Amino acid sequence: MTPRTGRRPGASGASTAIILAARRRFADLGYDGATFRGIAAEAGVDPALIRHYYGTKENLFVAAMRLPFSLGDALDEALSSDPEHLGEDILRAALRVWELPQARAIALGVVRAAATQDQAARMLQQFIQQTIVRRIADSLDTPQADLRASLVASQIAGLTVTRYLLRIEPIASLTADELSTAIAPTLQRYLTGNITHPNALRRSAT
Amino acid sequence: MTPRTGRRPGASGASTAIILAARRRFADLGYDGATFRGIAAEAGVDPALIRHYYGTKENLFVAAMRLPFSLGDALDEALSSDPEHLGEDILRAALRVWELPQARAIALGVVRAAATQDQAARMLQQFIQQTIVRRIADSLDTPQADLRASLVASQIAGLTVTRYLLRIEPIASLTADELSTAIAPTLQRYLTGNITHPNALRRSAT
Repeated sequence: MTPRTGRRPGASGASTAIILAARRRFADLGYDGATFRGIAAEAGVDPALIRHYYGTKENLFVAAMRLPFSLGDALDEALSSDPEHLGEDILRAALRVWELPQARAIALGVVRAAATQDQAARMLQQFIQQTIVRRIADSLDTPQADLRASLVASQIAGLTVTRYLLRIEPIASLTADELSTAIAPTLQRYLTGNITHPNALRRSAT
Repeated sequence: MTPRTGRRPGASGASTAIILAARRRFADLGYDGATFRGIAAEAGVDPALIRHYYGTKENLFVAAMRLPFSLGDALDEALSSDPEHLGEDILRAALRVWELPQARAIALGVVRAAATQDQAARMLQQFIQQTIVRRIADSLDTPQADLRASLVASQIAGLTVTRYLLRIEPIASLTADELSTAIAPTLQRYLTGNITHPNALRRSAT
């Protein structure tokens, strides 16, 4: 399912196997239940190799969260586009991530870990803060970049929860185009619109 | 903390004690771990009384989720207001709910239960679908009422996750007025604006 990059095939193959095994283990057993030993056995590698690559379980968890979604990469691509279409491009990137095989199962595993382990919750918080909010804010040329980025994160997080995790209707059944029409303007306004002057906003919203 | 209604004081007192105890037990022990017996002991009532009031653990769970937040009541009040301010009023209602004592602890308990128990997850889904989406949709006089309501739910859910549960900055530190300025126009557009015609939207967003 995961395309090989072609670079350093041996190391890349083992790395991919470790990440896939880690995802399954974290999803099935939670953060505390998953072990280097179990993940190594499932990946067919030596536990020392995982320790060599990732050092700590936290690092592996963050890597396992990041890689399946490729959220950072998808975001980087979207963030390099025309500022005028940034909202739509970020939304499309998020939707593409959710098209990946097992995306929902993986996300549920992450939520399960975060809901039951304070440490995993802190990691999810840091992950969203650094990988999503920081990344979007750094790419913006507008005032209140941090605020804008966290507002974007709030709508993306809400779409994730309602459409993919809880499957609230009808948002769970919309096509990508329908979602884009409905939600991309929200993201675009958060990114480049007026978000801090109530009077101007009140008027433009009615 | 919870104001007495003045009606049927005895029954209301016992009912409040049961709900408060149920909230704590579900939060501490999860959905499966909490029992009528344990909740009754903590509330100082007979387990039969809880069974008489709620019949099943599911009913009690839904009631325990609903009452602390008074989300239905808060929404009803917001939904009766001027359509032009509906977005702001719904947002303010959500923010007021989060000002309630222990709101975050209770919400975390609900998320924990939903993340670890399929049954609790289904109940949370049904709760959001029926109490929030259905209620908003039924109050709207516009086409695509269901779609509009689920879009509102997605932004409110995302605000909840990023501000209150994960505490993503800077959205976690904004004042109610700052949040209203930034997010109320989103809700207002979802409720009464153009959400299904891409060309019109694309232009209005830029």
